[in-house]
Amino acid sequence: MTAIAQTPDSPYYAVIFTSIRMEGDEIAYAEMAERMVELAAVQPGFLGIESVSDPNGTGLTVSYWRDLDAIQKWHAVAEHQEAQRLGKEKWYSQFQLRVCRVEREYGWQQLGDEPR
Amino acid sequence: MTAIAQTPDSPYYAVIFTSIRMEGDEIAYAEMAERMVELAAVQPGFLGIESVSDPNGTGLTVSYWRDLDAIQKWHAVAEHQEAQRLGKEKWYSQFQLRVCRVEREYGWQQLGDEPR
Repeated sequence: MTAIAQTPDSPYYAVIFTSIRMEGDEIAYAEMAERMVELAAVQPGFLGIESVSDPNGTGLTVSYWRDLDAIQKWHAVAEHQEAQRLGKEKWYSQFQLRVCRVEREYGWQQLGDEPR
Repeated sequence: MTAIAQTPDSPYYAVIFTSIRMEGDEIAYAEMAERMVELAAVQPGFLGIESVSDPNGTGLTVSYWRDLDAIQKWHAVAEHQEAQRLGKEKWYSQFQLRVCRVEREYGWQQLGDEPR
């Protein structure tokens, strides 16, 4: 992950995708994951994405969306459907997907050198 | 992260904590993080936690709670307040915290060897 997603004021929606990878196929998986981030980013209603994975093969990806309709349309995109199929066939031993309404948020950033 | 959280049927609540670490103090930070997971787990209304961090210092932690009241009470626990203070003073260069209502979920798990 390179940055914290710059989301608008709530309410908006989050999809929390928690996954455990099967071993192998690292390069093809990484390419697919990168492509899905690119493809998500050009969908209507996309607000941002945060994704972190560890060397043990566990991953947490949160994508942010304007509304439930945008999430449903992204779910149905043909190339994404194919990735979902491959996910079950080859990539994941287990995953959980949670659709959430973001109700409030709080952000904080270190500024300069003064004590805080 | 060792496992996907076993949460009940929705609705319930999720706190998405996305963070970027400052360098240094790795051992003390890891101890604090582990202690906070232990302490969260014994709070009323705690449902589970998933946390992944990468070597660049970005982290995603999602904790799950029965309701907003449980989240507020956890926020106010004295030892957690002290960790929040240290987080701003020493651990994080930036973080974002999002409180969400989980509205639906979908889980999947690889079973046996049959094609799926």
